[in-house]
Amino acid sequence: MRNLKITIEYDGTRYAGWQVQNSRRIRKSPRQRPTIQATIEKALRKILQEKIRLIGSGRTDAGVHALGQVANFATKTKISLYKLQWALNGNLPDDIVIRSIEKPNPDFHSRFDARSKVYRYAILNRPYPSAFLRNRVYFYRHPLDVRLMQQEARALLGRHDFKAFQATDKKERSSVRTIKKISIRNETPTLCLVPCTLLIIDIEADGFLYNMVRNIVGTLIEIGRGKFPRGNLKKILASKNRKLAGPTVPACGLCLSEVKY
Amino acid sequence: MRNLKITIEYDGTRYAGWQVQNSRRIRKSPRQRPTIQATIEKALRKILQEKIRLIGSGRTDAGVHALGQVANFATKTKISLYKLQWALNGNLPDDIVIRSIEKPNPDFHSRFDARSKVYRYAILNRPYPSAFLRNRVYFYRHPLDVRLMQQEARALLGRHDFKAFQATDKKERSSVRTIKKISIRNETPTLCLVPCTLLIIDIEADGFLYNMVRNIVGTLIEIGRGKFPRGNLKKILASKNRKLAGPTVPACGLCLSEVKY
Repeated sequence: MRNLKITIEYDGTRYAGWQVQNSRRIRKSPRQRPTIQATIEKALRKILQEKIRLIGSGRTDAGVHALGQVANFATKTKISLYKLQWALNGNLPDDIVIRSIEKPNPDFHSRFDARSKVYRYAILNRPYPSAFLRNRVYFYRHPLDVRLMQQEARALLGRHDFKAFQATDKKERSSVRTIKKISIRNETPTLCLVPCTLLIIDIEADGFLYNMVRNIVGTLIEIGRGKFPRGNLKKILASKNRKLAGPTVPACGLCLSEVKY
Repeated sequence: MRNLKITIEYDGTRYAGWQVQNSRRIRKSPRQRPTIQATIEKALRKILQEKIRLIGSGRTDAGVHALGQVANFATKTKISLYKLQWALNGNLPDDIVIRSIEKPNPDFHSRFDARSKVYRYAILNRPYPSAFLRNRVYFYRHPLDVRLMQQEARALLGRHDFKAFQATDKKERSSVRTIKKISIRNETPTLCLVPCTLLIIDIEADGFLYNMVRNIVGTLIEIGRGKFPRGNLKKILASKNRKLAGPTVPACGLCLSEVKY
């Protein structure tokens, strides 16, 4: 058996997420959306003629995107990695692309071996929305004080209990995580396709709680709009009280940019 | 009556183009796709409660995008332009966005007054496609000699008969046009959403023949792949023979970036 590592880019818009989170609820819904994991497993099964179980670095929610999701799987195949990548991209829908296939250490595990993950949240902060970026960014038209957001965000750096930013309906054994980096900046890219300024928030941590990035960003937006007094983010964090933090921003602005090993 | 000018961004993917080009053929097709023009007229009619006839700067084909399409229309309404823009964006589907509404000279005509138009063709030139840019760029995986494309493209500058680059099934009174600028360059944008290099081709002219940009780009790609000898583009142009030029590249890579007045 070979252990293969794949890096995946996907537009999560029409998917129920990486993996079905609550199979009973999803099954009841009249129009069940596919998952990224099941879609790739199906294509692999077709190409390799064997049942494949993908191990993802972690789940992404419905509507969340990825530029660098990582997964691994065991296979008997001896097909060249180059050919396998082409066959996969040929058999996958256009909104899922395999960026690379590599042969890692035989015992590589995409979830257990991950040292950190980087999530990016993109906000289109201008007076009107964008036809092209509509499923890719969160359109927010009110002006934001980016410098204040940057200053307040420093309180999140380091090892903390992030309970205040955890979805209330999800309980994990521990809500302590380490945020290694936060970057908040306006980018006016030499963006050749849509000329606009995006507010880009990158967060790198050793792990993320359910909805953690979207709750942090929702809180930062409230700060940027001047709804919280200076120093409040530190208090929200210390309170461990979800009710004091800001709202959960939409999934469409979120992207798993990178998994670091 | 007020004459209003609107600037429109649209993702042309699911549309039959700006305006139905051949109503008989389209009507016969089982799944008639909407046009951009009809969609905006419908929203305007709903908001203003009067029949509106949009005059576009020109047609765009099925699947072709726009960042700066311009149109004008006459209306009795006295609603503020700000409110009208918001009402329109609220009533339009997400893939059509009104970027601005202005009050031009009373006799402004979006087609007759246009001095030139700028079209942009975007090529994703890397070994694998992109999940995000799939309907927005032409994915072409073979390496291209960009410098050679730039050198050859100079032959197109100025006033010429572009018959060799005109769709064979379309006849216009004259196929003489003036290309004012051509820019061909690799952009590795600080593109915050999809890190990749795009080959961007911008062409500005006083007017374009049907399929002219897509036929020119198809020919430039053949040049970039080394399929034509040096100096051949000039000969193709002089021949006025469509058969000597390269293929028509897909609509998805094309975007009407700007109409200049």
